[in-house]
Amino acid sequence: DSKLKIFTCNSNPKLASQIADYIGIPMGESHTTSFSDGEIQVKLSESVRGCHVYIVQSTCGPVNDNLMELLVMVDALKRASAKSINVVIPYYGYARQDRKARSRDPITAKLVANLIEKAGAHRVITMDLHAMQIQGFFDIPVDHLLGVPILAQYFRSKQIQNPVVVSPDHGGVVRARKLADFLNAPLAIIDKRRPEPNVSEVMNIIGNIEGKTAILIDDIIDTAGTIVLGANALMEGGVKEVYACCTHPVLSGPAHERLENSPIKEIIVTDTIPIRSNNPTSKLKVLSVAPLMGEAIIRVHEELSISKLFEIE
Amino acid sequence: DSKLKIFTCNSNPKLASQIADYIGIPMGESHTTSFSDGEIQVKLSESVRGCHVYIVQSTCGPVNDNLMELLVMVDALKRASAKSINVVIPYYGYARQDRKARSRDPITAKLVANLIEKAGAHRVITMDLHAMQIQGFFDIPVDHLLGVPILAQYFRSKQIQNPVVVSPDHGGVVRARKLADFLNAPLAIIDKRRPEPNVSEVMNIIGNIEGKTAILIDDIIDTAGTIVLGANALMEGGVKEVYACCTHPVLSGPAHERLENSPIKEIIVTDTIPIRSNNPTSKLKVLSVAPLMGEAIIRVHEELSISKLFEIE
Ligand SMILES: Nc1ncnc2c1ncn2[C@@H]1O[C@H](COP(=O)(O)O)[C@@H](O)[C@H]1O
Ligand SMILES: Nc1ncnc2c1ncn2[C@@H]1O[C@H](COP(=O)(O)O)[C@@H](O)[C@H]1O
Repeated sequence: DSKLKIFTCNSNPKLASQIADYIGIPMGESHTTSFSDGEIQVKLSESVRGCHVYIVQSTCGPVNDNLMELLVMVDALKRASAKSINVVIPYYGYARQDRKARSRDPITAKLVANLIEKAGAHRVITMDLHAMQIQGFFDIPVDHLLGVPILAQYFRSKQIQNPVVVSPDHGGVVRARKLADFLNAPLAIIDKRRPEPNVSEVMNIIGNIEGKTAILIDDIIDTAGTIVLGANALMEGGVKEVYACCTHPVLSGPAHERLENSPIKEIIVTDTIPIRSNNPTSKLKVLSVAPLMGEAIIRVHEELSISKLFEIE
Repeated sequence: DSKLKIFTCNSNPKLASQIADYIGIPMGESHTTSFSDGEIQVKLSESVRGCHVYIVQSTCGPVNDNLMELLVMVDALKRASAKSINVVIPYYGYARQDRKARSRDPITAKLVANLIEKAGAHRVITMDLHAMQIQGFFDIPVDHLLGVPILAQYFRSKQIQNPVVVSPDHGGVVRARKLADFLNAPLAIIDKRRPEPNVSEVMNIIGNIEGKTAILIDDIIDTAGTIVLGANALMEGGVKEVYACCTHPVLSGPAHERLENSPIKEIIVTDTIPIRSNNPTSKLKVLSVAPLMGEAIIRVHEELSISKLFEIE
């Protein structure tokens, strides 16, 4: 039986070691550093010959450095005769550049998929891709995990009374539907509409929210503009309180400040992206995806179905 | 006849526009910026359908950002139906990771070649690759230009009396030989030797240097350690004065300070990499590769031989 090894670069070392702990193996020894001029240097300090290797690395910010670390690590493992190279990308950066939204746009999510394959990866394990179509950008197997069961379990344990799950836009309804099902809660949708060109958007809420506890859900919270506007509209619409949750806390630019000053009571996120702000909002609650990722790696390595990972007890 | 267009990203905009001026065409209009989270956004503001496009972009520091900008730009041009995509990389970063120097090393220079090809480039024009073998890492045509004629012309115009060209190590002798030929000067080599393990290196100079004006030449000056040690050894060996020159001024870490405090009289470099230091050494003299690159692009576009670019008048 071939050996399973876990390596990581610099994006999520803590998550990687929690995954290794879950699986019950030590982290593979490697050092990803920079030369004086900023070029990445990867040193593998142990043999990987004949091993099934899993590299845990999100392509969150600094996105180009984290992506290049991943690619160089894959190259090193390939040349060191690893039997299979499985890249575990909890947060897949560049996912929002998934189509030509305007003419002459690049499709960077596809470019990144090509780069990862060309470097030598044999499989991708990732989570809550911004668009499910990105699975099709790869010609290697993609195991796609969901954050919703982790978020749902948290809200269940909180025993929130009279909840309503709210999608901040039409693109997120499928995800919100799933959370609503887990929580046995009704669903509402924020419907943004621009009545005339150059007039600001009107937030219209589809569904009954009055007096309820709203749970806003999105895949990514980046600058937090959408989610905070949504929370304001919900408060005006008469909800009792608002929670917000997402899988990937990108939280760039004014995000922490906006969330802090918003009517949102608590923001529940996962650790696919580490929180790097010097002044993070006090409202954050971080749930770990380590057990989910660890279980997925074990099941993939043992060639078992991963479908049980989409259920909750 | 198909149209020639020049684009650039953010590594060398000044060089790119000098190249466009040399060729006598306006720069192609594009905007390479970042989203709030640091992901690169490329906007092409004019059509490239059916055009032969040349992208000028060095993969100098910040190396991963500059490389990714290049790849995303290639992706955008490909999807916008450019007829051919020619990447002009005056300085090719990661070139020193060109072999497994230790076991389990990546070969990042090859990885980068693969990434550029996979993104969709049809041709590479580059200059003074750290190892000529990197040409063979590509399966597309590589036009390889030399900085030596530009450096030689400068030293000729200075009419240096009694020169000796010096290679700072055995790896650079071929390059130094070429400069010596252009200048009709003798050649010397700095021969580093460690007499016993854990004893510091001894600098031995092969060739006659006494009373002469030494011209040290290398492809890259990075932290400037090698070149400054070489200059010190030459001064101790009895040269009258020392000049240093290179094609690629990486100049990272303590480079500027070391050069400033060294016995080197003047450091002649090219603009394949822009000088970015807040406190650059006053000894720098920057020569432009724009006419060489411009001429190379014209000749490649017109399908003429580029061999005349290796001569000087
Ligand atoms: N990193 C990013 N930050 C902000 N917006 C982005 C980013 N990447 C892509 N976009 C834009 O987001 C839109 C796609 O988002 P969506 O419509 O939610 O799929 C496109 O119009 C992109 O131009
Ligand atoms: N960016 C870099 N900065 C400093 N050293 C490097 C860099 N990239 C590779 N190297 C090392 O430089 C050596 C190759 O240089 P050379 O022997 O001159 O071809 C290898 O041992 C590499 O580990």
